[in-house]
Amino acid sequence: MLDSTATTQVQETLDALNAALEAGDADAASRLFATDSYWRDLIAVTWNLKTVEGPAGVKDMLTAQLGHTKPRGFAIQDGEVPAEDGGVTTAWITFETAAGRGWGLMRLKDGRIWTLLTSLQELKGFEENKGKRRPMGVQHGADKHRTTWKEARQNEAETLGYTEQPYTVIVGGGQGGIALGARLRQLGVPTIVLDKHDRPGDQWRSRYKSLCLHDPVWYDHLPYIKFPDNWPVFAPKDKIGDWLEMYTKVMELNYWTRSEVTSAQFDETSGTWTVKVNRDGEEVTLHPTQLVLATGMSGKPNIPTFPGMESFKGTIQHSSQHKGPDDWAGKKVVVVGSNNSAHDICAALWETGADVTMVQRSSTHIVKSDTLMDIGLGALYSEEAVANGVTTEKADMIFASLPYRILHEFQIPAYEQMKERDAEFYAGLEKAGFDLDWGDDGSGLFMKYLRRGSGYYIDVGASQLIIDGEIKLAKGQVDRFDETGVVLSDGTHLDADLVVLATGYGSMNGWAADLISQEVADKVGKVWGLGSDTTKDPGPWEGEQRNMWKPTQQQNLWFHGGNLHQSRHYSLYLALQLKARMEGLETPVYGLQEVHHLK
Amino acid sequence: MLDSTATTQVQETLDALNAALEAGDADAASRLFATDSYWRDLIAVTWNLKTVEGPAGVKDMLTAQLGHTKPRGFAIQDGEVPAEDGGVTTAWITFETAAGRGWGLMRLKDGRIWTLLTSLQELKGFEENKGKRRPMGVQHGADKHRTTWKEARQNEAETLGYTEQPYTVIVGGGQGGIALGARLRQLGVPTIVLDKHDRPGDQWRSRYKSLCLHDPVWYDHLPYIKFPDNWPVFAPKDKIGDWLEMYTKVMELNYWTRSEVTSAQFDETSGTWTVKVNRDGEEVTLHPTQLVLATGMSGKPNIPTFPGMESFKGTIQHSSQHKGPDDWAGKKVVVVGSNNSAHDICAALWETGADVTMVQRSSTHIVKSDTLMDIGLGALYSEEAVANGVTTEKADMIFASLPYRILHEFQIPAYEQMKERDAEFYAGLEKAGFDLDWGDDGSGLFMKYLRRGSGYYIDVGASQLIIDGEIKLAKGQVDRFDETGVVLSDGTHLDADLVVLATGYGSMNGWAADLISQEVADKVGKVWGLGSDTTKDPGPWEGEQRNMWKPTQQQNLWFHGGNLHQSRHYSLYLALQLKARMEGLETPVYGLQEVHHLK
Repeated sequence: MLDSTATTQVQETLDALNAALEAGDADAASRLFATDSYWRDLIAVTWNLKTVEGPAGVKDMLTAQLGHTKPRGFAIQDGEVPAEDGGVTTAWITFETAAGRGWGLMRLKDGRIWTLLTSLQELKGFEENKGKRRPMGVQHGADKHRTTWKEARQNEAETLGYTEQPYTVIVGGGQGGIALGARLRQLGVPTIVLDKHDRPGDQWRSRYKSLCLHDPVWYDHLPYIKFPDNWPVFAPKDKIGDWLEMYTKVMELNYWTRSEVTSAQFDETSGTWTVKVNRDGEEVTLHPTQLVLATGMSGKPNIPTFPGMESFKGTIQHSSQHKGPDDWAGKKVVVVGSNNSAHDICAALWETGADVTMVQRSSTHIVKSDTLMDIGLGALYSEEAVANGVTTEKADMIFASLPYRILHEFQIPAYEQMKERDAEFYAGLEKAGFDLDWGDDGSGLFMKYLRRGSGYYIDVGASQLIIDGEIKLAKGQVDRFDETGVVLSDGTHLDADLVVLATGYGSMNGWAADLISQEVADKVGKVWGLGSDTTKDPGPWEGEQRNMWKPTQQQNLWFHGGNLHQSRHYSLYLALQLKARMEGLETPVYGLQEVHHLK
Repeated sequence: MLDSTATTQVQETLDALNAALEAGDADAASRLFATDSYWRDLIAVTWNLKTVEGPAGVKDMLTAQLGHTKPRGFAIQDGEVPAEDGGVTTAWITFETAAGRGWGLMRLKDGRIWTLLTSLQELKGFEENKGKRRPMGVQHGADKHRTTWKEARQNEAETLGYTEQPYTVIVGGGQGGIALGARLRQLGVPTIVLDKHDRPGDQWRSRYKSLCLHDPVWYDHLPYIKFPDNWPVFAPKDKIGDWLEMYTKVMELNYWTRSEVTSAQFDETSGTWTVKVNRDGEEVTLHPTQLVLATGMSGKPNIPTFPGMESFKGTIQHSSQHKGPDDWAGKKVVVVGSNNSAHDICAALWETGADVTMVQRSSTHIVKSDTLMDIGLGALYSEEAVANGVTTEKADMIFASLPYRILHEFQIPAYEQMKERDAEFYAGLEKAGFDLDWGDDGSGLFMKYLRRGSGYYIDVGASQLIIDGEIKLAKGQVDRFDETGVVLSDGTHLDADLVVLATGYGSMNGWAADLISQEVADKVGKVWGLGSDTTKDPGPWEGEQRNMWKPTQQQNLWFHGGNLHQSRHYSLYLALQLKARMEGLETPVYGLQEVHHLK
């Protein structure tokens, strides 16, 4: 089909949408949508992360929101040309609302809207100071009371949290807290990031020494400063640590190191939190309006208890406590678990000369790293994608535009392709007795990540050690410990000097229980997952990831995190939600998260 | 003229050039050039920074170089379309040589080549590991002797300069040394950067507290990592300091802080230097093959001696020693000089409440900062330029493509425009008694910078203080000091608690005299300047800046520096020259710098 036809079709749809919206006619607008259709809105219309489905869903949402948020002026994005491929016409669009300006992606099928992504990009009157609006730096002219940049920064660092209160406190200064902190700084939202480590980046530095990112560089950029062209595809942990440290400084975050929250309480009357912080031994009480938990999407370590643990003469560590293999050369180590960390830890121990046994308790999804890059990510996040004009920002939007409801349908063929490409590899693993799976519906790694955040290993070499029997494999549940090791349910005894429990992490609302109260943790409910009714992600269907980056049932409490991609992209929407509230804008939330599970 | 005509014309010229070069026919190639024409080559053909003029110059150069460097394959750059404007057709071009690949810009006038810029961009077989060639970071597979990134970095830091010798030592770790160090690291040239300060960036941090860059952000990027979109137009000195520090770490430079060179000696026989370094109290002897002085293009401070200095009861500081105004509130200060530093220092002292007098010894060129941005730089280095597709790299090339011989002709109209735009401002300065100039030929600031590196102030506010009499103005030469102040030639006595000598800097070969020997300093001669036969830049015409970024009369001794723009752009050519020599490539230099002035 000619581009001009695609353009005409898109323009006609947008014209009709604009007319319906201007007329306040939710019904007419909804009739532009196909029976099977999805409007995913990232805070532009719903002040929520929300996907509505079909004409009925669209009508319900617009009926509630149209009068407040006034979406309008939908147009083909300047410089972009709609394109048709396989019966689907895709168009980059822009629009505005009462409060801001938006960007989106629309797909038409059979003349109707099939998918629509709308995302708020900036608030009118509160645009970020960048590009043409960047600060001058120097104040020209002469001023007897001039404050230099350094003096202003020092003054801010000394007063914020003491004589001045931050609007937002972010608990946790990993990539999530840092990315959000940078965006809030840009938006002029006074913010303190709290982190328990000595330096920004220690979240990575403190982990096992062979750790490298499992996602490639094109997927990992932070906002504002991209990794340079010479950055490794899979960055070593200490290099990422150094980058986060410099980023924190360059982006001028108010980042408190060696700082742990001891308690947090919300006062309904004042609408503010009382957050008690141990700042390197000093007790400081903060009174922010907004509290963000960015303590890691993996949440609190799951540390199971087994009978006999106390009698074990060796060492027991959760994977999050394991510092690497150096002390364990020539020793016997049992690693309980078979996901990413378990594999990485086993391989590093083997390399150092430990005798290593992995205990596989349930089936695991394995994908080779280069295959995942080529087939899973390459079209959006790769050197080729960048060369094809798919910027990181566009890739994020394309990815976000695929509705979670049908995302697995796009994923399944990719994983079938991977299975075929690496058939020999998988046969080897099965021959070694390793239990494989591809997710409940064969949709593979990314769906497992979104649904449960676990259950997979991106192979960078450990699988071959299992195939070759260099890492020994045991299977089954741990029944108990004894003085010398671990006993499995089938009676197998595994001698051990060290047992590493690579047993994963709980829901992030566990942090809310610890820092705030069990009551608040239960009020907000489970964090992460889609309600896909698959293993470890019980239904009902939620439509979006539970409680992430959006309003929760606890007023002024937010959850932020995820991998570097999510920390980058979704920090924008969380930052804009906080800014809008600070500025007193009307932010009526459509479809506030309901709670179906406590953890 | 239609683009297609321009393209045809360019293609025909390139075809003829390629044919002549392939046939080894320097004469035929030279006939493609206009009578008044300029071929500026940045190490691609000449292994030098060299501009040759007219057909005769081209013929002489090609006769000498054609057989060795074999330039060929000149083509219109992929994705670029030649364009005609005002009788000049401009084309981005690519080409190759025996050793590498090049990029350039060609201008045709009346069917012949008017200007040709050729620059080497990479060496064949030694391409940088970036983009598609970026390192993997992780080594997939398992290896019992795996070294982590952190271990490898630590090992390198411990051995380089001790058990392993660097190929290159760079003396001076400001933006020049850092930019060059980053490029050399990317090219795999083992390098140590030596700097006397406590931290990278202290070159800026240690200066007077109100200092901000006088050049705007678009002009200031370092290689590989651009300043982010929110970076101030004129960055405060401490912010630049922080950026340089993080850059040094992220780019993994071997940067020795608190390290001063005590002596350097070249051994003709071994072809290596013996460089004695005081590294934070430890004496270390280095044996690099190449020595780069990046000690500041301004060279050593000019500290004049005046009769009676020893009897003066107050304080005397060179501007480079002046730490800012804080100690001088309510005191009398005399600042000798009227260039950038003098103005900045006077304004900061006035802001703090000092009684300030500037002593103008000779006329000064003043341009208002925003005018300079709008008229002088905007087309190449601005938000608009970036939006128009003029990347920093393209801007650098366009700028480099204007031959120094005729550059002033392009500059004069811009400064005439500035003079008109700010007529009222200049009238005010003249009324206040301030002596203005616009350069010997009215070509303004950038020519002054290239010719003599001094003689101007980019006004960010001090001029108004002079107009208003807030900064007092005295004129003439300093005759002597007495106990209470300074006496000018006309007998005027200026009381002073502090005298700041903003008396500029000498030639960079002064550093060679100090670190190596007077003999070597004299052998290489004056550094900087074009030989324009204007004030402080005596002839004969040199064609390029003396001794900068190119081979000198002292084997294996190089000078690097300049503003951020020059540090960024010319570090590429110096880095490639060093890499080529390390790899033993043939690098026959055409037109080695002659020495006409000792300083």
